Amino acid sequence: MLTFIGLGLYDERSITVEGREALADADRAVAEFYTSHLIGTSVEKLSTYHDIDIDVRDRAGVEQHPDDILDAAEDEHVAFLTAGDTMISTTHVDLRLRAIERGIDTRVIHGVTAQTAASGLTGLQNYRFGKAVTLPFPYAHGADGVPASVIESIEANRERGLHTVVYLDIKAERGEYMTADAAAGMLADDWADVLAVAVARAGSPEPTVAADRLSALAGRDFGDPLHLLVVPGDLHHIESDALATLGEASAELLAENER
Amino acid sequence: MLTFIGLGLYDERSITVEGREALADADRAVAEFYTSHLIGTSVEKLSTYHDIDIDVRDRAGVEQHPDDILDAAEDEHVAFLTAGDTMISTTHVDLRLRAIERGIDTRVIHGVTAQTAASGLTGLQNYRFGKAVTLPFPYAHGADGVPASVIESIEANRERGLHTVVYLDIKAERGEYMTADAAAGMLADDWADVLAVAVARAGSPEPTVAADRLSALAGRDFGDPLHLLVVPGDLHHIESDALATLGEASAELLAENER
Repeated sequence: MLTFIGLGLYDERSITVEGREALADADRAVAEFYTSHLIGTSVEKLSTYHDIDIDVRDRAGVEQHPDDILDAAEDEHVAFLTAGDTMISTTHVDLRLRAIERGIDTRVIHGVTAQTAASGLTGLQNYRFGKAVTLPFPYAHGADGVPASVIESIEANRERGLHTVVYLDIKAERGEYMTADAAAGMLADDWADVLAVAVARAGSPEPTVAADRLSALAGRDFGDPLHLLVVPGDLHHIESDALATLGEASAELLAENER
Repeated sequence: MLTFIGLGLYDERSITVEGREALADADRAVAEFYTSHLIGTSVEKLSTYHDIDIDVRDRAGVEQHPDDILDAAEDEHVAFLTAGDTMISTTHVDLRLRAIERGIDTRVIHGVTAQTAASGLTGLQNYRFGKAVTLPFPYAHGADGVPASVIESIEANRERGLHTVVYLDIKAERGEYMTADAAAGMLADDWADVLAVAVARAGSPEPTVAADRLSALAGRDFGDPLHLLVVPGDLHHIESDALATLGEASAELLAENER
């Protein structure tokens, strides 16, 4: 049996009750934290809280050498843990398909995602978001600035009046997390005066939400990771009110985006 | 203090541990289940499980008469409960803004959403979804068939190769839940041969995933609610494998959608 469990966004209490019970029932736990990371806890704390040893794998240990995970799941109940939801990465889907191919029972226990939190914390409506994008570190995509595909996706969403979640690059193994101010600075090269919303520490007890022009966000400091950006499309009245109250956006800036 | 808590998708154990603890700390709990609904539990079970009385409000009791909720939150810790995530409805955003206006501390504890589950259960990648749509009951939008805005949104997504989550209408107060086969039948008028994926009971221990042409899905029975549909755009290789293994899609049909 292989149970995929999403740990949610922040610490050891971000998991669902159902996920916690499934983990208590597991014989062993395997985790990967290279696609995302829980900022509010540590592997040791997770292990103590859930009273189970956690075998943390790097990318190669999941993608290239999943066989011992699958071998174990043939005889035992193995829990596979990830931050956020559990099926965000194609690797995890692939692992599930391999397990099914081998006749292993699988189960998915969902976790809260950054997409959900981005909508919930900003007051921007869930059904008015278009395709999300990820902004990579320049060294990671091998060129300066923002990839054309990111610009194109945000523009295509804005043309339809839709909001865009901009996930920011994480190199958890190197301890590098792109900040919202750095990301705003990169996007401000094209869109200095465009409204955006920085969200820091989504899912934590003290998240930060700040709505301003990209050039202004670029000069601010949003504290500890993880961060993300939202580039709003057209704003409905209640969305505009939310960005004023929750993100302290100016009335002038919001008026430019209301439809 | 007013804490908005998302209960997740299915039963009393779909809440996060953090949400459960916040609810244990609350002096009173208010809930609305008209925007969505937990199929795997009841208000009585929720109340017993969390050891707190739950005051269930209808639409008017939240939208038009929120004052006693806000009055209570000035002196006590009030938990406001909803299925799924907590900020899915504009009403809840509005309630939060009113609370802040009155100087009441607010907090948001996120829940798992159907969007997350739709991606996780189908193996379709989260960042390849475009704008979501809701398919209303014909009587609810006052015309036969599918609203033009729904068709246009799905088409705009497909032109960009993106997947669409189609939420199905819920009239919880009347006990009416649109089924995936009924929805597929409505969409099949325009798109009989188009690939779609029915997802039933997302978040439950026994979800169903079925991938087939809309005309074929229209003739099937997916059992108990809640249901949703996904209309895929272009399929990456792993997504195609997932729909074959998890949704039993035919190789021929998948080949039409691979890019």
